Amino acid sequence: MNPLAKSTRLGDLVALVQGQLERGNPDTAILRLATLESADGASLAFLTSGGYRRQAGITRAAAVVSSVELSEAVPEHVALVTVRDAYRAYGALARHFSLLANLAAVPSIHPTAIIDPSATLGADVAIGPHVSVAADVQIGAGAMIGAGCTLDHAVRIGAQARLYPRVTVGAQCDIGARSLIHSGTVVGSDGFGFARHEQRWEKIPQLGSVRIGDDVEIGANCAIDRGALDDTVIGDGCKLDNLIQVAHNVRIGEHTAIAACVGIAGSARIGRRCMIGGAAGILGHLEICDDVTISAMSLVTRSITQPGFYSGIFPLMDNSEWERAAVLVRHLPELRARLRRLESRLKES
Amino acid sequence: MNPLAKSTRLGDLVALVQGQLERGNPDTAILRLATLESADGASLAFLTSGGYRRQAGITRAAAVVSSVELSEAVPEHVALVTVRDAYRAYGALARHFSLLANLAAVPSIHPTAIIDPSATLGADVAIGPHVSVAADVQIGAGAMIGAGCTLDHAVRIGAQARLYPRVTVGAQCDIGARSLIHSGTVVGSDGFGFARHEQRWEKIPQLGSVRIGDDVEIGANCAIDRGALDDTVIGDGCKLDNLIQVAHNVRIGEHTAIAACVGIAGSARIGRRCMIGGAAGILGHLEICDDVTISAMSLVTRSITQPGFYSGIFPLMDNSEWERAAVLVRHLPELRARLRRLESRLKES
Amino acid sequence: MNPLAKSTRLGDLVALVQGQLERGNPDTAILRLATLESADGASLAFLTSGGYRRQAGITRAAAVVSSVELSEAVPEHVALVTVRDAYRAYGALARHFSLLANLAAVPSIHPTAIIDPSATLGADVAIGPHVSVAADVQIGAGAMIGAGCTLDHAVRIGAQARLYPRVTVGAQCDIGARSLIHSGTVVGSDGFGFARHEQRWEKIPQLGSVRIGDDVEIGANCAIDRGALDDTVIGDGCKLDNLIQVAHNVRIGEHTAIAACVGIAGSARIGRRCMIGGAAGILGHLEICDDVTISAMSLVTRSITQPGFYSGIFPLMDNSEWERAAVLVRHLPELRARLRRLESRLKES
Repeated sequence: MNPLAKSTRLGDLVALVQGQLERGNPDTAILRLATLESADGASLAFLTSGGYRRQAGITRAAAVVSSVELSEAVPEHVALVTVRDAYRAYGALARHFSLLANLAAVPSIHPTAIIDPSATLGADVAIGPHVSVAADVQIGAGAMIGAGCTLDHAVRIGAQARLYPRVTVGAQCDIGARSLIHSGTVVGSDGFGFARHEQRWEKIPQLGSVRIGDDVEIGANCAIDRGALDDTVIGDGCKLDNLIQVAHNVRIGEHTAIAACVGIAGSARIGRRCMIGGAAGILGHLEICDDVTISAMSLVTRSITQPGFYSGIFPLMDNSEWERAAVLVRHLPELRARLRRLESRLKES
Repeated sequence: MNPLAKSTRLGDLVALVQGQLERGNPDTAILRLATLESADGASLAFLTSGGYRRQAGITRAAAVVSSVELSEAVPEHVALVTVRDAYRAYGALARHFSLLANLAAVPSIHPTAIIDPSATLGADVAIGPHVSVAADVQIGAGAMIGAGCTLDHAVRIGAQARLYPRVTVGAQCDIGARSLIHSGTVVGSDGFGFARHEQRWEKIPQLGSVRIGDDVEIGANCAIDRGALDDTVIGDGCKLDNLIQVAHNVRIGEHTAIAACVGIAGSARIGRRCMIGGAAGILGHLEICDDVTISAMSLVTRSITQPGFYSGIFPLMDNSEWERAAVLVRHLPELRARLRRLESRLKES
Repeated sequence: MNPLAKSTRLGDLVALVQGQLERGNPDTAILRLATLESADGASLAFLTSGGYRRQAGITRAAAVVSSVELSEAVPEHVALVTVRDAYRAYGALARHFSLLANLAAVPSIHPTAIIDPSATLGADVAIGPHVSVAADVQIGAGAMIGAGCTLDHAVRIGAQARLYPRVTVGAQCDIGARSLIHSGTVVGSDGFGFARHEQRWEKIPQLGSVRIGDDVEIGANCAIDRGALDDTVIGDGCKLDNLIQVAHNVRIGEHTAIAACVGIAGSARIGRRCMIGGAAGILGHLEICDDVTISAMSLVTRSITQPGFYSGIFPLMDNSEWERAAVLVRHLPELRARLRRLESRLKES
């Protein structure tokens, strides 16, 4: 539930999404957005795909937003708003209710924040308690730095960017305008670079930094390493979920979306508009072209040069069935040899 | 080693676990609990499974706790305590020694903590240094908030709950009574919700929150996203290990245990008393019934409606063997076609 | 780019790596190290493997460091430095430029740090803002504790160790000399230990601690659990990347390197000089001998007693190809049965 939302007239919401009020009273007070299942008489709900027809039929929502195609699934006694794209309409209304709900972050600098005198702060920045801002940091106008964030030497934060509490940004890293970084994420940790010498590892200092574009979102507890010599680069408009590892020198093209728990090894280059499924892995020093989709938990072991949808996942089975199948995976070369012997015997006969 | 433990009489420990002192002096001073392997003459050790018989035979422990069935593996010169369930007895004694060892968190509010005047604090709360508590937060009696934690607007923390240092809880999230959250975990980060529009991603604000039940434990550096419209829900008594991703709108039933590095995608529903192995993945919008066990690193790609044990893991091999087998996995359709041809040739003949 | 690097004479850099200046002016000013691709006329670049010959041929670097074998790939107009091992030379020069670039952490204790009077601080320690140091902590000479770190009761930090901002170290844990821990990492969270009793989980307090050796590096946002009774141990010289889970009682031998996102379950023992690929998993209570390499995303399900290279990864395919192959993995037992039937029919005939 979203207890802070304030009431809005249904008719105003219809106008906001350029929809059509097919039936129902435009003066109905809408207190919140809700799923079809949990909606009540003060809720506006959404029918965004045919898979939710059944829930639409029994919803207690005051009104439902739907495409024309699916709208007959909405019961007659429920107000109906038709739109071209119900999912986008949901996004627009969520933004509206989010603004109503948000206590605006009042521009101010908390007295417990430690800010080096050489740092440059734009107009209307909000800096929370227990923040540390090192020398030569630049923070753009309207940016928000949450409680406990640490910005190391010469970091640049773009205008209107938002760092949630406890984000760490290492020396010289850049974060673009309007980007959003969730709590616990570390930008600019050292890349994993060592040279082996006489059975020991010698550290190779990581001299590059991280450049994050504009309108990027990065989830909670991610780790984005700085480059070894060049920078690690995340392009404009990329969206990264939680607990993602981006190794040194990785480059991610614009508007690529990456689900949670993905690991990307060093110097991999990922194209634009790719979609990487959760917990997928991408090996180092390879290239993925634009418009590639990778299934969850698949490992990319070679460059991909054709847009498309790629998978590599062991299918889930009942454990006893799995035990029988898995042992045969090991024996595939033997099975093929036996097949070949049969084939040559039959050829002879 | 556990250097803070204070000495206890063996006889008192036997009473605590309602065991039987089969042999040995009840006045023996026990300084610490230990494994059979690392125990010394002031240690009490545990024989919890037949696999440790050999270590029991050569232990230097002062005394061993064992079931009657395994007790003959304990050498005659070692004091012997028999119990019904040696693992539970170990748990009970670990709690006893833990209480001896712990410096009780003295109820107090550190002067560097920033606490909004509208926050409500129960009796005997302990709030560490550099904590931030926003407006309208409620903290239950006896709760402990470790150093550097951040509680955003209207968070509720149950009585006796413990947040280790550097936990972040986002606006409106609830954490139940006696729950335990380890360091670095983020509760209430935004769910990963975007609508694609003309090759860009539009953010869908996440209006739900997170509700964590009573007696839940969540490990270090996890990320628990807030719901899109409804809440993300973790039921009473659930135990989550470290580095776990719980996406928006996930619901986890009571007393389910989840090992480290698991990723659970959006809107998945997991039943009660399930056990999810480490680094397993669960795709979104599916349902897992009660009492399901999933192997480590398996990916759940469809709903599971029968209790049981499920696996899907590529078997580990010597790399050269793997190369031969893996290439044949790709050629399975061809192998089957060749098999079919042989079958029809033999049918004809 | 590494904007803080100061200029150095090429001849001095050649001496530093005991190389041979084959051609070019030793008085050339080198401002930075760079990749062959991004180098400019003030850069020194490296040709470290034959795969980069093409980039060497078109580099705009002032000078290139190369082995004698590869050196002919460097154009005549570019200064050439030959060395025995170009990758090690790169490491040594990166250390040189890193020292030039680093603002030395001035030994000092920030006034916002909260330090228990019973803590012992060595000479020349640097403690950042908003740090918490509990009772009986010992910090060795020259150690650096970054902003927002939390050191719980009786933690010991070795001489010259560096903790980046926002590291948490739990009670009684040890970190060795010269070790380096990146931001967000949690050392000493509770191991995942519960006893099942009547469909509920009873917590088993974790009485052990964590012992991290000398010259260890641990990446960002890792979780290293304390032992149940014995300690969790990471040997001297180990290198761990980001987002790694080390469960209770794990022991990792000296100079083992572990890539990002790896999960190691409880009581696993890993040998010396192993290399564990990214997102690999290691099940609990097993042993891996010295000098073992594990491929990325492979799951180790049994002990490994022979040094070598082990893999277990489902190969990546076009999704439609994968669908056909994956279904046949399930049907392997049936395929083998059909093969057997054919074999016995042919034997009969």
